[in-house]
Amino acid sequence: MNIAIYGYGNLGRGVECAVAAAPDMSLVGIFTRRDPATVHPHTDVPVYHASDLLNYKDKIDVLIICGGSATDLPEMTPALARDFNVVDSFDTHADIPAHFARVNTAAAEGGNIALISAGWDPGMFSVNRLYASAILPDGKDYTFWGRGVSQGHSDAVRRIEGVLDARQYTVPVPEALDAVRAGNKPELSTREKHTRECYVVAAEGADLARIEREIKTMPKYFSDYDTTVNFITMEELKRDHMGIPHGGCVIRTGETGWDHENKHVIEYKLTLDSNPEFTSSVLVAYARAIHKMHARGMNGCYTVFDVAPADLSPLSPEELRAKML
Amino acid sequence: MNIAIYGYGNLGRGVECAVAAAPDMSLVGIFTRRDPATVHPHTDVPVYHASDLLNYKDKIDVLIICGGSATDLPEMTPALARDFNVVDSFDTHADIPAHFARVNTAAAEGGNIALISAGWDPGMFSVNRLYASAILPDGKDYTFWGRGVSQGHSDAVRRIEGVLDARQYTVPVPEALDAVRAGNKPELSTREKHTRECYVVAAEGADLARIEREIKTMPKYFSDYDTTVNFITMEELKRDHMGIPHGGCVIRTGETGWDHENKHVIEYKLTLDSNPEFTSSVLVAYARAIHKMHARGMNGCYTVFDVAPADLSPLSPEELRAKML
Repeated sequence: MNIAIYGYGNLGRGVECAVAAAPDMSLVGIFTRRDPATVHPHTDVPVYHASDLLNYKDKIDVLIICGGSATDLPEMTPALARDFNVVDSFDTHADIPAHFARVNTAAAEGGNIALISAGWDPGMFSVNRLYASAILPDGKDYTFWGRGVSQGHSDAVRRIEGVLDARQYTVPVPEALDAVRAGNKPELSTREKHTRECYVVAAEGADLARIEREIKTMPKYFSDYDTTVNFITMEELKRDHMGIPHGGCVIRTGETGWDHENKHVIEYKLTLDSNPEFTSSVLVAYARAIHKMHARGMNGCYTVFDVAPADLSPLSPEELRAKML
Repeated sequence: MNIAIYGYGNLGRGVECAVAAAPDMSLVGIFTRRDPATVHPHTDVPVYHASDLLNYKDKIDVLIICGGSATDLPEMTPALARDFNVVDSFDTHADIPAHFARVNTAAAEGGNIALISAGWDPGMFSVNRLYASAILPDGKDYTFWGRGVSQGHSDAVRRIEGVLDARQYTVPVPEALDAVRAGNKPELSTREKHTRECYVVAAEGADLARIEREIKTMPKYFSDYDTTVNFITMEELKRDHMGIPHGGCVIRTGETGWDHENKHVIEYKLTLDSNPEFTSSVLVAYARAIHKMHARGMNGCYTVFDVAPADLSPLSPEELRAKML
């Protein structure tokens, strides 16, 4: 199975590594909108300019699109799905139906298959929400994120005047997690579910009180949360906060029995040292799946909901039944 | 979607309740090998003798077979798959490939669809082993069971002379769980993973020391484990040990990165007040799925590995993408 990468940032680097770990895949190229001479992959895979992509159409089974959801993917995925089987990690939940429709039209017209919104949320968390709700229809589910770095919130802090650099961690509230796991089905406000921790490097002489106030009162990003702001040195930031960990959990609690007398808790939990590398690993597994599905004659757009688990594995159905069932 | 139940024990009762909770299903009958007059369902669903089953062939979309894996299902599922779409919970892991082959032949000949080995292990645990290994190929997975009642081990204790009744709980060893979750990939012996707790009601005057020794040295069931034996009264057993709780977790830890420098933990955890009612809920969700798959022209035998998550849900693909992705 020949894979190509479109876009070489954190996610693209993760895909390069994940494809190398896959026994049934080869990486045939990295395509970039930058000058290819400025892109240095970890392996000796060739780097091409994005404008050359169509020349390699016959050599690519699946193109993994590693762009951002804000502006890249809404354009890229429909455009590329006309000529390639594609996987993306589009993660703007509210816009998924519109993105799906555009990609579905393009992929179907090209006779290609596309899988959108792979990763962990959307992605593995979504799959677990679906399984749990299908099994326990009489129940309630919760998603908690963290402890982990939110890139968007870190960026928002960095835009404040006097801030040289910053990291923001999203942290689930332990009492909320406990109440959910106990099956109490609490109604939780935004503030009750997560707290936000900021580590900020301020410019010399900057007004720290103003920076802290601007962070804590920032609408959407921080004002609905209990936020703590820690000012640290650039050295401390580089020593303690260079990783991109993340994770979280999806929990559904529900009841069975004629009097709802039996409680059940289903929990799916991720603890990830590297958010982009884990996301990349999911993208690569779904690239394998859509390659198999396309070989069975399937076209158009799909999501993680439409993929049978067996298609994600390099093992045969016989091996899977013998070893993993 | 019209469902029928074949066999009315703990599992059959759970299916009756789970079908009642499903918005898109009706229960059309319970079939039993006993005298139907002796079977008393919770609802007013009719009870028929098993020998009448073929008379209702046109009225049943999916037949959920609620028999035991030791002797019932190896006979029942292939026989019934010739005439019905069927779901079973066959759970003898080592015999799944042979069971699959027999059911596949029968279902294909009859133009029917069968799903075997639904439940939680095999079942949801299997699905999670597969997802996790496909995403993190460089890793190791572990399955822990409990704390929960093992019916087979409870039965084994009850067969000892002088034992009036007994319950056996399987309990994961906390230190083993901690080591696995920490990503240490320990090699764990049987004894290091689980302990066994027995609650035994002995006959008056029975030799308690002998009973305890016979339990602890019983090959396969107890001799490879650290086992504790607690003698209690029948009143205590009835007060504290009448439930059938179970659960456990599937954990895969793995690494990504060129130097395997980033660790990840994927954990799927179930905490169940009623093992049979949860298993029944899984069977009912997979009955929904195979009904959809059969409508798309699929025949033969499948497992949970072959079912796309969307097929388990009563919601439409559009609703699922909008609400759960």
